[in-house]
Amino acid sequence: MTTYAILGTGALGGFYGARLQQAGNTVHFLLHSDYAHVKRQGLVIESPAGNFTLPQVNAYADVGEMPPCDVVVVALKSTQNHLLPQLLPPVLQETGVVLLLQNGLDVEKAVATIVGDQRVMSGLCFICSNKVGPGHIRHLDYGAIILGDYAPGYPSLGITARMQRVAQDFTQAGIDVELATDLLLARWRKLVWNIPFNGLSVVLDAKVDALITDSHTHQLATDLMQEVVAIAARQGREIPEAYIQGMLKATTQMKPYLTSMKIDYDQGRPMEIEALFGNPLRVAQVTGVSVPKLEMLYQQLLFLDRQQG
Amino acid sequence: MTTYAILGTGALGGFYGARLQQAGNTVHFLLHSDYAHVKRQGLVIESPAGNFTLPQVNAYADVGEMPPCDVVVVALKSTQNHLLPQLLPPVLQETGVVLLLQNGLDVEKAVATIVGDQRVMSGLCFICSNKVGPGHIRHLDYGAIILGDYAPGYPSLGITARMQRVAQDFTQAGIDVELATDLLLARWRKLVWNIPFNGLSVVLDAKVDALITDSHTHQLATDLMQEVVAIAARQGREIPEAYIQGMLKATTQMKPYLTSMKIDYDQGRPMEIEALFGNPLRVAQVTGVSVPKLEMLYQQLLFLDRQQG
Repeated sequence: MTTYAILGTGALGGFYGARLQQAGNTVHFLLHSDYAHVKRQGLVIESPAGNFTLPQVNAYADVGEMPPCDVVVVALKSTQNHLLPQLLPPVLQETGVVLLLQNGLDVEKAVATIVGDQRVMSGLCFICSNKVGPGHIRHLDYGAIILGDYAPGYPSLGITARMQRVAQDFTQAGIDVELATDLLLARWRKLVWNIPFNGLSVVLDAKVDALITDSHTHQLATDLMQEVVAIAARQGREIPEAYIQGMLKATTQMKPYLTSMKIDYDQGRPMEIEALFGNPLRVAQVTGVSVPKLEMLYQQLLFLDRQQG
Repeated sequence: MTTYAILGTGALGGFYGARLQQAGNTVHFLLHSDYAHVKRQGLVIESPAGNFTLPQVNAYADVGEMPPCDVVVVALKSTQNHLLPQLLPPVLQETGVVLLLQNGLDVEKAVATIVGDQRVMSGLCFICSNKVGPGHIRHLDYGAIILGDYAPGYPSLGITARMQRVAQDFTQAGIDVELATDLLLARWRKLVWNIPFNGLSVVLDAKVDALITDSHTHQLATDLMQEVVAIAARQGREIPEAYIQGMLKATTQMKPYLTSMKIDYDQGRPMEIEALFGNPLRVAQVTGVSVPKLEMLYQQLLFLDRQQG
């Protein structure tokens, strides 16, 4: 049976890891500030799909004490990726794989440098959940993961055997899984939404419903989406205009959410600016795509980040 | 001797009007909320150039009671220009002229529609002053006015006789005056600074010194300045790159100011978005100049304005 390590037992890692353990998998959780609490009291998950408690979990404060695992789930924010060279090698089994649950673009490369090009796959999470206390996760809505496999240069790899194995475990744990034959396309499709709404929610101090309702920010979000689509096209990934229109329409029907980046900003945590904005912008610059509004959003976010720092 | 009417006895009109009266001119002040106070107690001016009080001023709450004047100084924000059709005709002498002290672009046209094409001139104010209480103006820094004359289509008119007459009164009142032979060029030059710093100070909740110090907003301000210069060029007004560099350098040496638009926003007053951003943007659109960052700033400001409204 597959063993799982969860690096980063927060809103994301805590929720998915607890679901995997609840379904019978062996899961090892790395914790930082919550270690003592979770070691004693376990994890508490609130969710519209049913609340549950795991009174006992395999909790670790030190990665050196964790057993090597088959799947190492990286659920840290990309702003903490400087920690990965220390964290990953001890806990990754010789034939194991890293499952990277991070937003943005080009985040696999850094992991591949540490563990090898053939040992990284990714999961794009569509979930609304927060950590509300030590070992206490409140899952609010959604929860699906799009799995995609990685190789250098982001070729379309189809559906690989390890994607299927991980999908099976997640599905049995009650998590909706979609398999993407082309990870890079999936990442660009997610960025079409993440770039305008994460960025503008921080700069304009706004919830998603306000941004989509106001005609000026509705247009600005559309403009940004079209810039993102233009960069993706230059990388050979076609996203039809209908996808943008569908995204906008779906967004008008969402509840009044705070985006994850806005939550990070409000809580004084560093924002994932480079993974979500800097890396796509650099692709645009290298490939000669004009994306002035994305650039302006990036400049504004960096200013706000530095002011807060 | 020239008689002056001041429409809008606030930070701007209160300061300049008081200086004119102090220098011996006849000045009539239109007031709104401060009328009763100023009628009784006059005006108090604090200024680094010397504090002074005018215990008695010609104060009016109703424009119909004011005598027709030679120079009608419009010191209202452009967001109140819908009031001008009622305010201007009673107070403008048959041979008089309106002196419009407003920021932005294309603000003369609306006034000319009311009083006639040949009866409008403008003053661009470089001043830092606030109204801190009823009839109480605190002048902090600067104070110069650039005077320019107006005719439909903004031809360069050179230095006209009425510019010289007004300049003489203002100069005698201790106000630095510069005469612009080309009002439209002067407006564009002022917008080169006003657009980035007024706009970004509101969107990023920042003072000017923070915006100019941070490398990302320094670059963004430069980008916006270059867009403004590109629109001006399409109207035949050349602003050299050295002007931008000089503006940026001068800005690094300014004290930590709040811009006037930021003060308006913080105090819940409407912002002059159309005069400063909407009108220049529409010129760009009509003449086919690409100004995506100006457009984005306009979209962001309209969102914030509507959220506040």
